[in-house]
Amino acid sequence: MPKTHTRCFHNQIKTAVVGGPVGAPAHRLYFIRDNQPISPWHDIPLVSNASTREYNMICEIPRWSNAKLEIDTKAPFNPIKHDTKNNKLRYVANIFPYKGYIWNYGALPQTYEDPADIDPDTKCAGDNDPIDVLEVGSKICREGEVHRVKALGVLALIDDKETDWKVLAIRSDDPLAAKINGIDELESFMPGLVSATVDWFTKYKVPDGKPYNCWAFDAKSQDAVSRAIPLLSADFIYLELLE
Amino acid sequence: MPKTHTRCFHNQIKTAVVGGPVGAPAHRLYFIRDNQPISPWHDIPLVSNASTREYNMICEIPRWSNAKLEIDTKAPFNPIKHDTKNNKLRYVANIFPYKGYIWNYGALPQTYEDPADIDPDTKCAGDNDPIDVLEVGSKICREGEVHRVKALGVLALIDDKETDWKVLAIRSDDPLAAKINGIDELESFMPGLVSATVDWFTKYKVPDGKPYNCWAFDAKSQDAVSRAIPLLSADFIYLELLE
Repeated sequence: MPKTHTRCFHNQIKTAVVGGPVGAPAHRLYFIRDNQPISPWHDIPLVSNASTREYNMICEIPRWSNAKLEIDTKAPFNPIKHDTKNNKLRYVANIFPYKGYIWNYGALPQTYEDPADIDPDTKCAGDNDPIDVLEVGSKICREGEVHRVKALGVLALIDDKETDWKVLAIRSDDPLAAKINGIDELESFMPGLVSATVDWFTKYKVPDGKPYNCWAFDAKSQDAVSRAIPLLSADFIYLELLE
Repeated sequence: MPKTHTRCFHNQIKTAVVGGPVGAPAHRLYFIRDNQPISPWHDIPLVSNASTREYNMICEIPRWSNAKLEIDTKAPFNPIKHDTKNNKLRYVANIFPYKGYIWNYGALPQTYEDPADIDPDTKCAGDNDPIDVLEVGSKICREGEVHRVKALGVLALIDDKETDWKVLAIRSDDPLAAKINGIDELESFMPGLVSATVDWFTKYKVPDGKPYNCWAFDAKSQDAVSRAIPLLSADFIYLELLE
C-alpha cells in the first residue's frame, strides 16, 4: 500500500487514501485491517445485531457534499472511487432547496442488487450494486467511515428502470437513535425528511437531461422488518455471486 | 498591514486576511486600495448605475456556509470579522431542508438602518447595520468580494423587533441577469426561492431559543424601484451619520 495518511475507525479498520484527494481522477480510498487491504464490500459483516435491526454501513458520501463517491465493485479490494461518466468526474447537482446529498450516503456490505433478478414488487431488475443506505443522524460522516446503523424503513426507487432500494437508517450512536425506531418516529423527529428524500431522488438526474425517477409502493416507505426480506434476499444473492 | 495573501477584485480593491482563517476568533478581512486600507462600508460607492438599479454589494458570507461573517461597523477600516455572541463564534444552524445561508449574503455600502428611526411601514427601528443583500446568482461568492448587483425586490424582516430590510439581487455578470428584472421573473426562473427566503428568516433564530421572526407587508416582496426609497433614505441617514 503506498505511503499515505491513515485514519482509525470502527472494528480496527483503517483507511488509506491514494491518488490524491476527492476530485482527483486517481483518488481511491482503501480499507485496511491488520495491515492488510480488505474489501469493504466483502470483508465487513452486514449484520451487526439482527434483533435490533442494526447493520454495518460504509459511508461513501458525506452529507451536503456533491461528489459521487462509490465502492468500485470491479477493482481488487473494492476501494471507494470518484465515479466517472463519459470520462468526467460525476457530481450531483444542487436540486433546490437542497445542497448536495441530504444524508450521509453509503452502502450495506455483503449485499447485492442482482441485474439478473426481477424484483416481484418493483418488476425491475437490480442495479448491479450493493444496497444503498441513507443515514439521517446529526453528525456528518466522512468517506470510508464504517458505522453501526439502525434500519428505519426502505424506499423502492426505480432509477433508470433498475430497482435501487434506499434504506433509511440512523447511526446507533446518534443522540436520537433510541427514540427513532421506524418511519413514523423519523417523521415526528425530522418532519419532512422522508418526503424530501422522495423529492430528491425523483429529480436528481433531471439536470443530466434524464426524466423524473419513479417509485414502487407509491413512494411509501416499507417497514424495515418486513423489508429485511429484500436485504436478506440480496444477501442470499450475494452469497451466490461469490460461489 | 501585516503580511498575508491578497486577492484582486472589482475596482482594483484587494483584500488581506489577518488573524487566521474563518473560525479563528482573530480572523479579519481588510479591504485595500492603492496600498491603503479602506473601509468597505464608507469607501465603496453604493450606486453603480441608478437607472438600471445596479448597486455594489460587499459579500460577507458565501452561499451554503454557516459562519456569521459581517462587516465590523465599530472597528477602524471596518474589516469583515466572524461575529461572536457571549464570547462564542456565531454559526447559523441548518434549518431543514436548507444548508447554511441559501444565497450569497452581504451588505450594501454607504447604507445604514438607523436604530433612532422608526420605519413608518414596519413600525420598528433600524438594526444599526448596513442594509443586507441576498444575491441569488449561480456562482458562489467569496468573503470580501465586491460585485455589481441588480436589485430585484426587498423584503421587510422584523428581526428581534428591529427593521432589517433584505434586498434580493442578482450579480450583473450572472448568465440569467438579463432575464431577471424583478420578483416575478425571479419566481419564474427560480421557483420557490422567495418563499424559501421567507421561511429561512422566519425560523433561523429558533435553534438559539428565539421565537419566529415576523415580516412587514405580509412577507411580500416590495418593488425594487419604489423601495429604492428605503435605500435612498438609508443612504441619506448614512450621510447624516458621517457628519
